[in-house]
Amino acid sequence: MADITKRSVDYSRWYLDVIQAAELAENSPVRGCMVIRPNGYSIWEMMQRWLDDRFKELGHVNAYFPLLIPKSFLAKEAQHVEGFAKECAIVTHSRLKTVEVDGKITVVPDPASKLEEELIIRPTSETVIWDTYRKWIQSYRDLPVLINQWANVMRWEMRTRLFLRTAEFLWQEGHTAHATAEEAREETLKMLECYRWFAEDILAMPVVCGAKTPRERFAGAVETFSIEGMMQDNKALQAGTSHDLGQNFAKAFEVKYQTSEGTEEFVWATSWGVSTRLIGALIMSHSDDAGLVIPPKVAQRKAVIVPIWRDDEGRDLVLAKAKELQEMLKPAIGFVQIDDRDNMRPGWKYAEWERKGMPIRIELGPRDVANDACVLATRHDGQKHQTPLSDLVSAVTGHLDRMQTELYEAALKRRAENTHRLETWEEFTALYEGPGGFAHCHHCGDTACEEAIQTETKVTIRNIPLDAEAEDGQCIRCGKPSSKRVLFAQAY
Amino acid sequence: MADITKRSVDYSRWYLDVIQAAELAENSPVRGCMVIRPNGYSIWEMMQRWLDDRFKELGHVNAYFPLLIPKSFLAKEAQHVEGFAKECAIVTHSRLKTVEVDGKITVVPDPASKLEEELIIRPTSETVIWDTYRKWIQSYRDLPVLINQWANVMRWEMRTRLFLRTAEFLWQEGHTAHATAEEAREETLKMLECYRWFAEDILAMPVVCGAKTPRERFAGAVETFSIEGMMQDNKALQAGTSHDLGQNFAKAFEVKYQTSEGTEEFVWATSWGVSTRLIGALIMSHSDDAGLVIPPKVAQRKAVIVPIWRDDEGRDLVLAKAKELQEMLKPAIGFVQIDDRDNMRPGWKYAEWERKGMPIRIELGPRDVANDACVLATRHDGQKHQTPLSDLVSAVTGHLDRMQTELYEAALKRRAENTHRLETWEEFTALYEGPGGFAHCHHCGDTACEEAIQTETKVTIRNIPLDAEAEDGQCIRCGKPSSKRVLFAQAY
Repeated sequence: MADITKRSVDYSRWYLDVIQAAELAENSPVRGCMVIRPNGYSIWEMMQRWLDDRFKELGHVNAYFPLLIPKSFLAKEAQHVEGFAKECAIVTHSRLKTVEVDGKITVVPDPASKLEEELIIRPTSETVIWDTYRKWIQSYRDLPVLINQWANVMRWEMRTRLFLRTAEFLWQEGHTAHATAEEAREETLKMLECYRWFAEDILAMPVVCGAKTPRERFAGAVETFSIEGMMQDNKALQAGTSHDLGQNFAKAFEVKYQTSEGTEEFVWATSWGVSTRLIGALIMSHSDDAGLVIPPKVAQRKAVIVPIWRDDEGRDLVLAKAKELQEMLKPAIGFVQIDDRDNMRPGWKYAEWERKGMPIRIELGPRDVANDACVLATRHDGQKHQTPLSDLVSAVTGHLDRMQTELYEAALKRRAENTHRLETWEEFTALYEGPGGFAHCHHCGDTACEEAIQTETKVTIRNIPLDAEAEDGQCIRCGKPSSKRVLFAQAY
Repeated sequence: MADITKRSVDYSRWYLDVIQAAELAENSPVRGCMVIRPNGYSIWEMMQRWLDDRFKELGHVNAYFPLLIPKSFLAKEAQHVEGFAKECAIVTHSRLKTVEVDGKITVVPDPASKLEEELIIRPTSETVIWDTYRKWIQSYRDLPVLINQWANVMRWEMRTRLFLRTAEFLWQEGHTAHATAEEAREETLKMLECYRWFAEDILAMPVVCGAKTPRERFAGAVETFSIEGMMQDNKALQAGTSHDLGQNFAKAFEVKYQTSEGTEEFVWATSWGVSTRLIGALIMSHSDDAGLVIPPKVAQRKAVIVPIWRDDEGRDLVLAKAKELQEMLKPAIGFVQIDDRDNMRPGWKYAEWERKGMPIRIELGPRDVANDACVLATRHDGQKHQTPLSDLVSAVTGHLDRMQTELYEAALKRRAENTHRLETWEEFTALYEGPGGFAHCHHCGDTACEEAIQTETKVTIRNIPLDAEAEDGQCIRCGKPSSKRVLFAQAY
């Protein structure tokens, strides 16, 4: 096992080292696509469980729409095709045939199987879903439609990075249909709030909720909202988006409904999604130079028992006790692994479980067994706690609760320390030539000014925070009048 | 809502009518791909939950491998490419560009984005997974690898049918790696047994477990096992397969490990899968002329309350009581919907919930409320039960248990009545010119003879049952010697 690069030495290298050390994911032979390894996938499964339960509590149901989208569908919403045409996987043939090339037998697409219309692997599913909704929605009684889909999607990214930006990724995409603009906006904000809850209460990652500027809107939306977290290098990461699509897709796909008054109206739409990118956000929010740290609520396994012995007698003793503890803990925190590998010393095992982000490690030697005690190590703060076995269950659940809270508080403190209210362009450029961070500043709202800021400093408007108060001011760069502050940061 | 065709009139039409009436799925604009509607997807979610829990109990973990497979990978295992090359979706370009064709603006694949090597949408993932396992497996200490994947796959089927045969379908595919041939065989049979348990105890569908003949083996397997259910038209449906892959994929992808004795060996493999086809099996096992019937264990919602009223006073009374019952039932069976639509009569609602396969319907009118009682209707047998509200929870759970058992027993009885031991070719052809069914007959084991039987009668060997006893006999068609009976049927 190679060492993990320190964050202070090379943050990007550290990120990839943590992923490798914790065996979360790796690059696949297909450019830009990743293999999500079992340790990484278990985090995604936990995220899915929390979100799916919450979506259902909020009245949504799941469905599944086709992977492939006819080329003509994408073209129906003008902004939409512009947004996705440049990076898509195009299916053109449906059969391979064997041929001889330079004396070698190989397979090639069979020209006779060329498709009449090319198919696109979905980059997102608005088009195929709204084409379907046209058949499902006739009357106001058919509304609202509140559907979510768990799926893989594909965008042919040129510069990829494990979890953060990959050609194929896993996500959920909600697609709802409503009778009024107000209802659609309400749903958009409700799901934004759902993502905020998930990021903060489950992932222990504080986020800023706000509206995107027109320049950063989803292709086809009338308004896009996002949650933005701060990573340990002070860069922002967009962790989820919720879109008010107005009637754009209903018009493109001719989805009308009869109102209770008998008139005909186009339907109002929303869509919202989070993806495996969140695993990247999680890693960069909490992990340290020793490896992965994740909040217990998304750890599928919450504790490991490392038995320690010197001889066969000690081995039998501690393994028997370890199995007792395993049984004892199961009802409270699920399956607890006993790491009884006999080709590795305890110290090596400790380091390995730290790299892998196991929240709690229980060390158990013959002397501990004699004393009816064990050592309980908590991953996030590296503390060791001498713990009577009679208190073990409550100690473990108590430490897990504490860990969840402390990880959030630490992230909140880090964000507070690196969030600024700036008034002048000098302050602004100084911040981003230096440590970076979040900057709440006035901005004129002009797209050209926004672009110029990005070109000059690589800083973008992350969003216009929902809680930004009305306040007269002058644009941080051009000095034109502004009525509220927006959130600036460099971003992933 | 159109009527459902009777099974006796047109079984195939009935099948599609039930799917439409219960809103389970529909064809999509992409040929051969289906939209799985919320009612259908909820069944798949229930199936996933049962299987996933069981896989994990058996020591498996989930992971995710790329959707796209380089063409050259498929070609590495000779039988494998032969099995899948004729029906696959081939990605050749990564960008669309706008062009003018006949004066109209349209998008076409950008020739400049042509891929160096074509990519295939996975028809199954052995190749990409074994290419990855080469990196993960070095020593006997790395074995076994017990991984499952939940994914979409694609096979360019020419004749498609909702759930039973679609170009894209959802499935799980287990891919395990072992140190010995014995261990791999043990895993293959363990997962076959897992599928048998799932089919019989959860789906209430009796199945025959057995080995496929060489002709019906998975492309690249040394032995394929299947579970075969009997549908209501007496045809067989292959509901799950488990493959012993021997060292075929390890050799194709050069996956070797160091044994504990220090020698080097190729790794032994298995793979196993079930798919959304099971939803088709479920429909055809239990449903009737009134619509969908499913066993309660895969019904996400197990009961609905239909309140009945004539005036506003009655409405308030029954709705208040309905909410009470809803709360009362929640801990036992989860969310229970109250169908309080005011534009539809109770009788229509009853018929709709029957079509949709709701296991239990609770009818509640003002007189019932006054008597502290309700009418409880069970979907599978159409019975109505006057039930005191004080007994409601235990009555509901009792009826659900009974329904699960009775559905299995009815299917078992149906299969027994339509299963035969035949000795002569005359009996055989008479059976399949008539009602069809399962026939246990002797067969010589010759592939040409097997093919001839299919050509002449459309009947195939479904499998060689695991519990077939040694018994000397003569091939049902050619009279050559045989040592055990095999299972014949017409199949989906």
